[in-house]
Amino acid sequence: MTPATAPALLRPEGRTLRADDRPCFADVRDAAARLAGHAHLTPLLRSRSLDALAGCELHFKAEHLQRAGAFKFRGAANAVFSLTPDQAARGVVTQSSGNHGAAVALACRLRGIACTVVVPHGAPHIKRAAIAREGARIVDCEVAQSARDAATARVLAETGGELVHPYNDARVIAGQATATLEMLQQAGHPADGRPALDVVLAPLSGGGLMSGTAIAARGVDPRIRPLAAEPEGACDGHDSLKNGALIRGRRADTVCDGLRAELGPLTFAILQDHRLEVLLVSDAEAVAAMRLLAERLKALVEPSAAVPLAAVLKHRERFAGLRVGIVLSGGNVDLDALPDLFALAAPP
Amino acid sequence: MTPATAPALLRPEGRTLRADDRPCFADVRDAAARLAGHAHLTPLLRSRSLDALAGCELHFKAEHLQRAGAFKFRGAANAVFSLTPDQAARGVVTQSSGNHGAAVALACRLRGIACTVVVPHGAPHIKRAAIAREGARIVDCEVAQSARDAATARVLAETGGELVHPYNDARVIAGQATATLEMLQQAGHPADGRPALDVVLAPLSGGGLMSGTAIAARGVDPRIRPLAAEPEGACDGHDSLKNGALIRGRRADTVCDGLRAELGPLTFAILQDHRLEVLLVSDAEAVAAMRLLAERLKALVEPSAAVPLAAVLKHRERFAGLRVGIVLSGGNVDLDALPDLFALAAPP
Repeated sequence: MTPATAPALLRPEGRTLRADDRPCFADVRDAAARLAGHAHLTPLLRSRSLDALAGCELHFKAEHLQRAGAFKFRGAANAVFSLTPDQAARGVVTQSSGNHGAAVALACRLRGIACTVVVPHGAPHIKRAAIAREGARIVDCEVAQSARDAATARVLAETGGELVHPYNDARVIAGQATATLEMLQQAGHPADGRPALDVVLAPLSGGGLMSGTAIAARGVDPRIRPLAAEPEGACDGHDSLKNGALIRGRRADTVCDGLRAELGPLTFAILQDHRLEVLLVSDAEAVAAMRLLAERLKALVEPSAAVPLAAVLKHRERFAGLRVGIVLSGGNVDLDALPDLFALAAPP
Repeated sequence: MTPATAPALLRPEGRTLRADDRPCFADVRDAAARLAGHAHLTPLLRSRSLDALAGCELHFKAEHLQRAGAFKFRGAANAVFSLTPDQAARGVVTQSSGNHGAAVALACRLRGIACTVVVPHGAPHIKRAAIAREGARIVDCEVAQSARDAATARVLAETGGELVHPYNDARVIAGQATATLEMLQQAGHPADGRPALDVVLAPLSGGGLMSGTAIAARGVDPRIRPLAAEPEGACDGHDSLKNGALIRGRRADTVCDGLRAELGPLTFAILQDHRLEVLLVSDAEAVAAMRLLAERLKALVEPSAAVPLAAVLKHRERFAGLRVGIVLSGGNVDLDALPDLFALAAPP
């Protein structure tokens, strides 16, 4: 594993974090304070049998138990709670095929402000229902990113509302980073002077969680190595970082419905600075890991959330003997789809 | 809800708790000290959407995250760890269709002593595999209780080992009671002077967990009401307590495979003293609750563990506005059986 420099691009003191700022570790601490009492302090789960299987010490940050069922609430609430009263009065707009939409809707309900979510056709039923349950207005659109962007722009123009982008937003990144900050606090301090964890893994999609994970990990201890895991069928993040140029417009083909987004300019820049390495796994490997999490950890997570464990199991030699943190990103899986999903995994 | 008196049958001081003693609250505290560092301190889970659905405040003690996947480890470890060196040298014998067997096997492995588990034909594959994984010797037998008892007696005679009965054993009851003790500590203290919880529910099978739950709850605060939930297809506990006479030899017919045991003389006597009330639910109601726990709490539990939530949802009026604790007893469910199980629940 090669070393990486931690960017420390501090904003001018005293100014509120804006969507297009580059978030720093101080912003993560601010977010943690802002979320206290609103976000769940989710448990850090262990399983001896999974440790034995992986050959390392696994610490699972149970964000599938977060409010609205995913880490997304942390970013959404940090953005929504930090709006000025003027901004809040005009309401919030976002686009999401699922967890982020429900999270923003919940955060807006808690603050008592209007919320519109642009949802592409084909979004999982369970995720669409969660958005509706929180009382947000849903605007349907086509699946292509260009169609989502056009619909979002239309709603923004209509309402004058504030865009809370699912990942390409410094406030969202700083909020999502608090999952890793908490995980490192909960993992404690080994007696041998090593950091709380040697490696922290998160799934890579639009890059918000991964950017936050890298900023939080390096901020707590520069020796902690952030690593990403991504499905082979949506490997734009892997390819963008390898080629040093942002790839956009590809069609994702993966059952990991939470990982179909593309990196944005902000998250790409942050992850480039961290020289982030991305491990790829197949859908079958992701679903096998999801099944293991259900069997051994009794954690029902969505396929996207199992991608980092799949990467650890695929690259056991990379993690041998290490203390490894994994963000279990979300648990919003359609129970009726479980048999079909499990059929994708190689027989045990 | 009628009041009940808390029995306080103290043993002579200084003597170790024996299997056929009547356990008291001091034994529960002893067990908690004995288990510290061995049993997981499992989290207490909440879900606002389940609270809204139930019309009360639900606190779920996540014993499906306990070692070996069920609360059973607490009782097994308390019994096995309190054996004298002489007893330990002769090994331990138990009978179990599942979770208790795996728990005793694990406790014996931790203490480094021999373990034999008598397992009836038809025990779930996942539970049998867990017993084998812990290195215990498995002795197969027929399903009828008489056949289990005969096989167990044979092994005891052969080995001279110590019987650790799944529930009719004071050491097991005191250990299992620590789940409720912890739950009450974790639930905290409402500002209005009410107890940590108003009601605590556990599933009723052989009565070990329920006896422990009643002893711990009354010991912490006599105002806390213990309540049992049992499947209609295995309602021997309900009928025994209602009729004031122990019913034995019925054939259980329920998908809740952890709740097919019958009360024993010790657990029956304890539950009679507590004037325990038992709420009955159908298999369909249990599975619907299991599905809700998966969807809303992201907790994958076995059908048996969902029976108390099913009882709360069936008798909403009984629990309106109360702080309700529920022991999620175990999570050892065969994932391949999920579609068939879910098919039992009424359509949502």
